[in-house]
Amino acid sequence: MRLSELSKKSGVSTATIKYYLREGLLPPGERISTNQADYHTDHLHRLRLVRALIHVGRIPVARAREVLASMDEDKPGTEDRVGAAIEALPYEPVNGSDGDAFVVRAQGTVAALLAQEGWAAGARSSGNHPAYQMLVDAVATLDRLGYPCDVPHLTPYAARAAELAVHDLNVIQDLDSPEERVEAAVALTVLYEPLLLALRRLAGVEECRRRYNSA
Amino acid sequence: MRLSELSKKSGVSTATIKYYLREGLLPPGERISTNQADYHTDHLHRLRLVRALIHVGRIPVARAREVLASMDEDKPGTEDRVGAAIEALPYEPVNGSDGDAFVVRAQGTVAALLAQEGWAAGARSSGNHPAYQMLVDAVATLDRLGYPCDVPHLTPYAARAAELAVHDLNVIQDLDSPEERVEAAVALTVLYEPLLLALRRLAGVEECRRRYNSA
Repeated sequence: MRLSELSKKSGVSTATIKYYLREGLLPPGERISTNQADYHTDHLHRLRLVRALIHVGRIPVARAREVLASMDEDKPGTEDRVGAAIEALPYEPVNGSDGDAFVVRAQGTVAALLAQEGWAAGARSSGNHPAYQMLVDAVATLDRLGYPCDVPHLTPYAARAAELAVHDLNVIQDLDSPEERVEAAVALTVLYEPLLLALRRLAGVEECRRRYNSA
Repeated sequence: MRLSELSKKSGVSTATIKYYLREGLLPPGERISTNQADYHTDHLHRLRLVRALIHVGRIPVARAREVLASMDEDKPGTEDRVGAAIEALPYEPVNGSDGDAFVVRAQGTVAALLAQEGWAAGARSSGNHPAYQMLVDAVATLDRLGYPCDVPHLTPYAARAAELAVHDLNVIQDLDSPEERVEAAVALTVLYEPLLLALRRLAGVEECRRRYNSA
């Protein structure tokens, strides 16, 4: 399809698509003349993922390019890259307090939690990956502010997170190609985040209403 | 306690505390001389909540003031305000596409989901509250990008959110005063958000490893 059709099908303006092409977020189309290129369904899928990362995930363009690169680099045509891509999703750190006592304690808590849950992937990261850093950061912040954040308090969260991960990967299982499954896994990880937070807030409001007859 | 002690106990600099006082995020201390004031444990709790909202929740100062006001305004000394405060937590909207076909469809999906779950609080909001808007926005974005977002796909998320809300309110149940419980409920709603997202990402990495032997 031409650029104009790609724009129509994706709902993304041609100017924005051209920007993504320039920035290397979208692979170039197949040249069919000096100033025309042909785009395929793959471009449409990739464009949806780019929108998810930048628009919903609020991930800067340069970091989005890294996430896409971690998906593309090895073993094309297999799902082996899904986990690496999810792990590479960046986040905005809350505090620049590396190595303070709260961070050290949070690292211990997280290590104990991951061991308890048997999450080899997280343990293997040993502090290098954004998802792991984000967890340590979140625990350290809770601790610093004096809120409960020991392993027993975190366990119900880990259990629900594991159930949702199973659900997400079941959702993408029926997609046609490994490429689509890899892209959908990363996109859904990001796109379901605001959904989950919104539902948890509404569930909190509802639980307050039931307990305190409020709201 | 004096300002310096409040600063030491909270880990927040005196300059930042003064800024919060000026902005009305923190109630004034009790004047004990022309240029000294006395602060109480209540100030320490409120300060922790302000940090949670602004630092972790990345909520602008003006909006944080609104959240605090919604906690304080009615029925002091009871938990009736918790739900209203959680519902009032602001979020950054993803798209300025009010009333387009995806938003209209998302409103229908959300209404059906809330009815199915029996969440009266959410249904009552009928579109006015941030948590409800955030949910509609998230569903419309999934739909616009062509990802699954019908009621059956959202139900597992709603179920886990409800379980976590029960867990959160159990955690705060043991706190001494209604004031503390109200503040902790709002603080934990915000502070556990990055924790939940981090755990879900790590759980995704782990589930990929198990399914695809990756990462």
